[in-house]
Amino acid sequence: MQAFQDLYPEDLSHCYGCGRNNPHGHQLKSYWDDDETIALFTPKSFHTAIPGFVYGGLIASLIDCHGTGSASAAAARAFCDSSQEPPRFVTAALNIDYLAPTPMGIELELRGVIREIKPKKVVLDISLIAAGVTCAKGHMVAVKMPASMMIEA
Amino acid sequence: MQAFQDLYPEDLSHCYGCGRNNPHGHQLKSYWDDDETIALFTPKSFHTAIPGFVYGGLIASLIDCHGTGSASAAAARAFCDSSQEPPRFVTAALNIDYLAPTPMGIELELRGVIREIKPKKVVLDISLIAAGVTCAKGHMVAVKMPASMMIEA
Repeated sequence: MQAFQDLYPEDLSHCYGCGRNNPHGHQLKSYWDDDETIALFTPKSFHTAIPGFVYGGLIASLIDCHGTGSASAAAARAFCDSSQEPPRFVTAALNIDYLAPTPMGIELELRGVIREIKPKKVVLDISLIAAGVTCAKGHMVAVKMPASMMIEA
Repeated sequence: MQAFQDLYPEDLSHCYGCGRNNPHGHQLKSYWDDDETIALFTPKSFHTAIPGFVYGGLIASLIDCHGTGSASAAAARAFCDSSQEPPRFVTAALNIDYLAPTPMGIELELRGVIREIKPKKVVLDISLIAAGVTCAKGHMVAVKMPASMMIEA
């Protein structure tokens, strides 16, 4: 089973959060789980907020990259046939409620629920769960990457 | 002039985004600029989204840490005398609109405007500006760090 991010084109796979071609980054991998999407990630010991807890910026990053990946997969499933490359999505709006401190030292689960799919816009909710507790809830509007973001090599 | 984050207590200065005691992290520094707050940050070459642009997770991280730092400073200015330690704030809600792709290779400016100050809650807006262009706008609700987040050493 290939991760959504592993289906991105080679020249659009350098994202620090989820690009397979970024050796410095998190290389987040997202998958279908029935009609929801899932990714797992264990923060490094230095991804600290207050000691013992994960910093909010990483939580935002994980929700963001799981969201754009899920948007790509959802749009591909809805509008593309198997010969077509999945469209690449970027974030237009990201809202996160931090509900509880996210503990360090355990694997985090990201779970996405697609709320709306149009060819150029996907709306979704993403939960970040630690040991069964939802620590953050994200709501995202993702839009198809505009052609103006393609820099010619 | 000391940065807001350099006034955090020693044992609460390990944040990956802004802690002076986290050698792996971004060590963001925020300051007053009249009644607004400002921080400057130049992303590393590997903080990529699509090649040429900064990834959204870093943008969220910078807005988040500039926001909690600004909240701490605003609450200290409003409610503390000079003998008291500034209160440490954490993020309850973070909303970001990504208005334009953020270009790599230049210094980014974060600018905070305090909208509401209570002893345990600060609301603020934060703009991320690249070469005069506002690329992202954040709205944050920061709350005083609950005692339950203090882990005894």
